[in-house]
Amino acid sequence: MDIKRYLEEKKGLVDSYLERYFSSKIMPEILHSAMTYSLFAGGKRIRPVFSLISYESLGGDPLRILPQASSLELIHTYSLIHDDLPAMDNDDMRRGRPTNHRVYGEAMAILAGDGLLTEAFHMLTTNEGGLSDKALLRAVRDIAQKAGIYGMVAGQAQDILSENSEPDKDILEFIHSHKTAALITASLRLGPILAESDDNILSLFTAYGNNIGMVFQIVDDILDLTGDPSKTGKSSGSDERKKKLTYPRVYGIERSRQKARELVEEAIELISTLGEGAKPLKEVALYLLKRSS
Amino acid sequence: MDIKRYLEEKKGLVDSYLERYFSSKIMPEILHSAMTYSLFAGGKRIRPVFSLISYESLGGDPLRILPQASSLELIHTYSLIHDDLPAMDNDDMRRGRPTNHRVYGEAMAILAGDGLLTEAFHMLTTNEGGLSDKALLRAVRDIAQKAGIYGMVAGQAQDILSENSEPDKDILEFIHSHKTAALITASLRLGPILAESDDNILSLFTAYGNNIGMVFQIVDDILDLTGDPSKTGKSSGSDERKKKLTYPRVYGIERSRQKARELVEEAIELISTLGEGAKPLKEVALYLLKRSS
Repeated sequence: MDIKRYLEEKKGLVDSYLERYFSSKIMPEILHSAMTYSLFAGGKRIRPVFSLISYESLGGDPLRILPQASSLELIHTYSLIHDDLPAMDNDDMRRGRPTNHRVYGEAMAILAGDGLLTEAFHMLTTNEGGLSDKALLRAVRDIAQKAGIYGMVAGQAQDILSENSEPDKDILEFIHSHKTAALITASLRLGPILAESDDNILSLFTAYGNNIGMVFQIVDDILDLTGDPSKTGKSSGSDERKKKLTYPRVYGIERSRQKARELVEEAIELISTLGEGAKPLKEVALYLLKRSS
Repeated sequence: MDIKRYLEEKKGLVDSYLERYFSSKIMPEILHSAMTYSLFAGGKRIRPVFSLISYESLGGDPLRILPQASSLELIHTYSLIHDDLPAMDNDDMRRGRPTNHRVYGEAMAILAGDGLLTEAFHMLTTNEGGLSDKALLRAVRDIAQKAGIYGMVAGQAQDILSENSEPDKDILEFIHSHKTAALITASLRLGPILAESDDNILSLFTAYGNNIGMVFQIVDDILDLTGDPSKTGKSSGSDERKKKLTYPRVYGIERSRQKARELVEEAIELISTLGEGAKPLKEVALYLLKRSS
């Protein structure tokens, strides 16, 4: 299968949904502009796409869960806006453009993030596909858990606390599994949760998601060192300048690459029991290893 | 009835629930400290208490909805932490203590806010009282709407944008109805939503909530000018120094007091059809007019 084209198609669905959703202006207009500036900055929509793939691999029609899948992009975008703030990572550029606070000021950037995060939960409850209340409620609970103080927010807090600190494998593991892998795991769990699959299936997707989430962050760390800034949209070596705790810093580049390969192999092994439906999950795992942006 | 004691009892339920909920440490510990520092800073718990009253006035047992009611306090607390940030209102003191970022730094204050907001949605889905999935999902949707870009976040954005601007009644109305009244309305709608009352009842609580929410903010504006700092926990006249758009600035103190009285009368009239169960709603409306902190 042509995985790149497959991912593009899914991304197209998410883009259209988000554009439609934010087509009517909210007040004040500058809040609307600040939110959409970052939301439509060329993101890969990888988290929503993971949700669509996971739902489809279980026989569901991805169109039914577009609001739920797309809500993950709002959460991801809010986290980028807040992470870039001067008090946090103090980044001026993101995806080749000035960061949100550089354009709209810090106050509006904080509020744009707060707005996107809150609206994600509103979007999550938008039922266009005849989903059950039980499934939707479980999705809300799962995403709140993995985006918040048991997941992404905790990871970001530890990341900030660990700047300039000595390389430490346990802390690195904590940061990556919380800051990045938790929300990616949530996006892969969304399929089985909304399909109301049994606990065995949900566990498979959880394990696959954890692995894939770690791979995603390890590859990010490597790209920060070796990537082409014109493709990554970030200046090269920014993690090193900020003395971030990264995989290459703790393990070196070669062992980091090896670790990513092992995690992908394990992930593919995990989902092999799902049969033909799992093909895109396998392909996307392999694709993540080779991405350059 | 002794409304003060009644409110104290309800507040006690919320305090105990929140203390139990946050008794187990989350990691990193400093994130836990930063969140609980502001959450347990002596807040009046007025929003959760409103929810408990609205549910009880419809014949429900308040203990059944403690997680849902208490989640509103997490949202309120996050909004205070973010509003106090240097980029926003730049406040050093809150409730007689240094603000969150003065103690934990800006980065951790932003994350504590993000964590409380996200955890509110997690708490909302905690079903200890045998509530229906349908009712809980509707509560999530309603609160996300009124706390986010159609409510509180929009109000705060307009508030920031309107500093130093000329007095304008429409903009003042927009700020107060969104920044404060929206979440208070949500807290009063929580009762009928979780009790699965019909639309007529829900409309009553919505109208009552809008009025009471506006009264709450008008009284806040007046207290900022005339209140005793040892009771309000804020230095006097801070709105004036920041050139905030307030009721007294637009209408003067006397007309603001008159407006608050009229809104309370209207609110009491609205809920009079609810009979004996509405007594606490009537008493609390009158109490709000007289509060000094």
